[in-house]
Amino acid sequence: MRIEGIPASAGYAEGPLFDLDRPPAAYTSKSSAAEEIAALETAIGKAVSRLSAMIETADGDAADILEFHIAMLQDDALSAPAFASIGSGQAADVAWRASLDAEIAGYDASDQDYFRARAADLRDIRDQVLRALSEDGEPTAPLGAIFHGEDVAPTRFLEIDWSAGGGIALRAGSTASHVAMLARARGVPMVVGLGTFPGSLAGMALLDAEHGGMVLSPSPAEIDAFRQSSSAFAARQGAAQSFLTRPAVTKAGTAVRVQVNIANPSDVDGIDISTCDGVGLMRTEFLFGKTLPDEETQYHAYRKVLEWAGDKPVTIRTVDAGGDKPLAGFTVEETNPFLGLRGIRLSLKRRDIFRVQIRALLRAAIHGNLKVMFPMIATPEEYSQAAALFAEEQAGLAARGVAHTMPPLGIMVEVPSVAIAPEAFANVAFFSIGSNDLTQYVMAAARDNAAVTYLNSVRHPAVLRLMEAVVRFGRETEIPVSLCGDAGGDPAAIPALLETGLRDLSVAPAQLAMAKAAIAEVPV
Amino acid sequence: MRIEGIPASAGYAEGPLFDLDRPPAAYTSKSSAAEEIAALETAIGKAVSRLSAMIETADGDAADILEFHIAMLQDDALSAPAFASIGSGQAADVAWRASLDAEIAGYDASDQDYFRARAADLRDIRDQVLRALSEDGEPTAPLGAIFHGEDVAPTRFLEIDWSAGGGIALRAGSTASHVAMLARARGVPMVVGLGTFPGSLAGMALLDAEHGGMVLSPSPAEIDAFRQSSSAFAARQGAAQSFLTRPAVTKAGTAVRVQVNIANPSDVDGIDISTCDGVGLMRTEFLFGKTLPDEETQYHAYRKVLEWAGDKPVTIRTVDAGGDKPLAGFTVEETNPFLGLRGIRLSLKRRDIFRVQIRALLRAAIHGNLKVMFPMIATPEEYSQAAALFAEEQAGLAARGVAHTMPPLGIMVEVPSVAIAPEAFANVAFFSIGSNDLTQYVMAAARDNAAVTYLNSVRHPAVLRLMEAVVRFGRETEIPVSLCGDAGGDPAAIPALLETGLRDLSVAPAQLAMAKAAIAEVPV
Repeated sequence: MRIEGIPASAGYAEGPLFDLDRPPAAYTSKSSAAEEIAALETAIGKAVSRLSAMIETADGDAADILEFHIAMLQDDALSAPAFASIGSGQAADVAWRASLDAEIAGYDASDQDYFRARAADLRDIRDQVLRALSEDGEPTAPLGAIFHGEDVAPTRFLEIDWSAGGGIALRAGSTASHVAMLARARGVPMVVGLGTFPGSLAGMALLDAEHGGMVLSPSPAEIDAFRQSSSAFAARQGAAQSFLTRPAVTKAGTAVRVQVNIANPSDVDGIDISTCDGVGLMRTEFLFGKTLPDEETQYHAYRKVLEWAGDKPVTIRTVDAGGDKPLAGFTVEETNPFLGLRGIRLSLKRRDIFRVQIRALLRAAIHGNLKVMFPMIATPEEYSQAAALFAEEQAGLAARGVAHTMPPLGIMVEVPSVAIAPEAFANVAFFSIGSNDLTQYVMAAARDNAAVTYLNSVRHPAVLRLMEAVVRFGRETEIPVSLCGDAGGDPAAIPALLETGLRDLSVAPAQLAMAKAAIAEVPV
Repeated sequence: MRIEGIPASAGYAEGPLFDLDRPPAAYTSKSSAAEEIAALETAIGKAVSRLSAMIETADGDAADILEFHIAMLQDDALSAPAFASIGSGQAADVAWRASLDAEIAGYDASDQDYFRARAADLRDIRDQVLRALSEDGEPTAPLGAIFHGEDVAPTRFLEIDWSAGGGIALRAGSTASHVAMLARARGVPMVVGLGTFPGSLAGMALLDAEHGGMVLSPSPAEIDAFRQSSSAFAARQGAAQSFLTRPAVTKAGTAVRVQVNIANPSDVDGIDISTCDGVGLMRTEFLFGKTLPDEETQYHAYRKVLEWAGDKPVTIRTVDAGGDKPLAGFTVEETNPFLGLRGIRLSLKRRDIFRVQIRALLRAAIHGNLKVMFPMIATPEEYSQAAALFAEEQAGLAARGVAHTMPPLGIMVEVPSVAIAPEAFANVAFFSIGSNDLTQYVMAAARDNAAVTYLNSVRHPAVLRLMEAVVRFGRETEIPVSLCGDAGGDPAAIPALLETGLRDLSVAPAQLAMAKAAIAEVPV
């Protein structure tokens, strides 16, 4: 029986099934409230130590998540209700579970993905402490297991030993979740959106996370076919590695620039700058965590990446909040956030916040080859206003004698209006096509909605035609055009992208080798 | 002091301010629970009688709303909690208010506009009964007053005597609300989204609902300027009336077809068929009220309009649920409903429901000049699938010997992909441009989000360019192209629309005269 889902991290896994949602072992209650309190304190401490130990081997996003969980566990406000309940006679496990469940229910009820994702974090913390309370310790899954369940927490993912293979099969989940991000970075095969399947599965399964599916109780013929696909995939991946250190060229010898997309300054720690042509997209939403960042924090983050890149360009995108990236104290709640106050629209509305980022960028610009781009530009007026703010802040820095330089200012091409009528943007320094958003608007199909995934294709002729129009306009006006959406790293999309005339792609670091290998196959 | 808002119904009003939100007069409690129960029963009965009396002079949407309110008041489930509270000692007014407020809070908490709009209906019912309880009766506003408040209920609107002028100024509100619809139909000036302004206003105000603003404590110069604008507007309106009965032609003598958009079969009762070229858009969401409609109900609704129109075409759009039109038992909750499972996407997913509508349309087609169009088409496959379902149902009716005929099947052009790559749709019978949705996708700006209204312009060059491309493709392939969005009835947009080559517009009945007058000014 094959169940269809959505691939979240490409790859193949074959192994025994392991239920992520099985309840932790029973807790033995203590004889007094004081002992219960001590037990809960110890368990929280144990959970914190385990998380701290995991940080040592984690990096980038994974470490951030773990630190966030530790901070939550150390927040007295979270544990106070549980300790109070113990005081009124409850056992530690009951008290902890009830107080966390109450918190979780609040987040779960939200219609915002962002808050629902926080519920997953809390659920994770809840289970960490419950496991520590019951001395159940680490889950004992067989090596190479396929972990199945409703959803999975990032820390649970990090606890698992993936050295012997294995994969993740989720009934719900999202390709945009933290865990999906981690799985892609570590090459763990993962499929989401499998829908309902028998809750208590046993035995072997085949996880095809290249196409998005899982085979339960496979027949010998199914196993054979699966192993062939799996080998072919591994061979393609192995072969791709040899492309990593070489410049990207097509079969006909046409050079293609391949840059990387990063979401966090620490992402560059794992990348050899000689393997890419620079940073095509550095996101800056990471800076806007629990509080709005100050100028110094931003300046140092930008400078780190610029210095790492040396002469190579680093294209930093001004904060693209809103849409599927709500930021507390900044974005607003909307019925259709993808069509709302996001990207440059929000920055132009909250100029106090925007000006801080502008100053940090102007100051960082002296440390490398900086380019700055604005997200969600729809009209030339928005670009002029943003550019005017850069000029104003530059004048301010100059008046105060602060070292700085004005970087080239370009725009993302993701709102269809820009691609349909590009002539209004003849004064921008460069175009960077955001294929994810451009596609979702051209097809009127949200990129994170599984029900309309069948429409959300970058290879639809209308999407490719708009890209072609931008490339043509760029050639006529000598304005550089690149692409920084997920499509740039998708071997299946690369031929069509190069066909439009694009010669500059920016991809996730993990996709660099595969992208270069795919480019080498294109005849143009 | 001028406050800026959004025009919801064009016009001018000058008059004393009247607070919509002032509390009703006090209720005198009775000496026993039995008397309290009797008082509440009487008050509910009185409210029902008042609503019934209003129905006599109301028509179309207004009557529907009143009937809906009467049905709610007569629903024992709504009043039961209040009667129960009286039984446990509460006074009738307190009991009624508390039980309705509890209901309202549930709807208010929803993030769906649709459910929040139901909260307004409940609030209206609550106040109707409270007024009847306190014998306060009709509110005594001065004639020609400008009613201001947070929002206003449809029945409150209908109670007001608008014969001597007056207008509505709302801090919140929406241009898409029931009241806005009623105000446009009756020519009552209305401005929404004025934001916070002093709660207790007194004295005169000037309401400019042509541009969207209100002047408080106006200076003599402001009053002069206002009256000039108001006279000019009235003159334009008066002049427009003479165009109603004539065919629409431009200054150069080019004929333009002008059809009407209707949302309800009863809408045609107020329209003289000789004043328009047919129905360019008949919506069918009205059918999907509390329950999903059966084939007979639909058949009769379609037949009524077809028979009214005679030889003239009636273009019926298959149900366009989802987006900002959730339907219980049919649509799904989504983070970005405008980019989700809506229109034809949903119909193709819920074929059981779609097939019922198809059969009703095939049967009704013999009673007039029917054309059928599919909303939200993004790919040629969607059109083929929908057309195949029509063929299947036709075969079924033929096999059973049921009278029917196959109407021409066309598509809405509202997803940008269709306008960007129209060549994939060379087999459709006609195109109808949905300017509202097309604009919101091209500009990535939700049509119902006040924060991005500045981007949502049908006159943006990118939107007009796509329309032009569709018109050109239609001319080359001899596929008729029309437009049925709000822009078709907007005098400010009409010149640009005709400039694209469009010669077939469909407008709201109330805009028919003004649209024809505007067409007569266009040089093409």
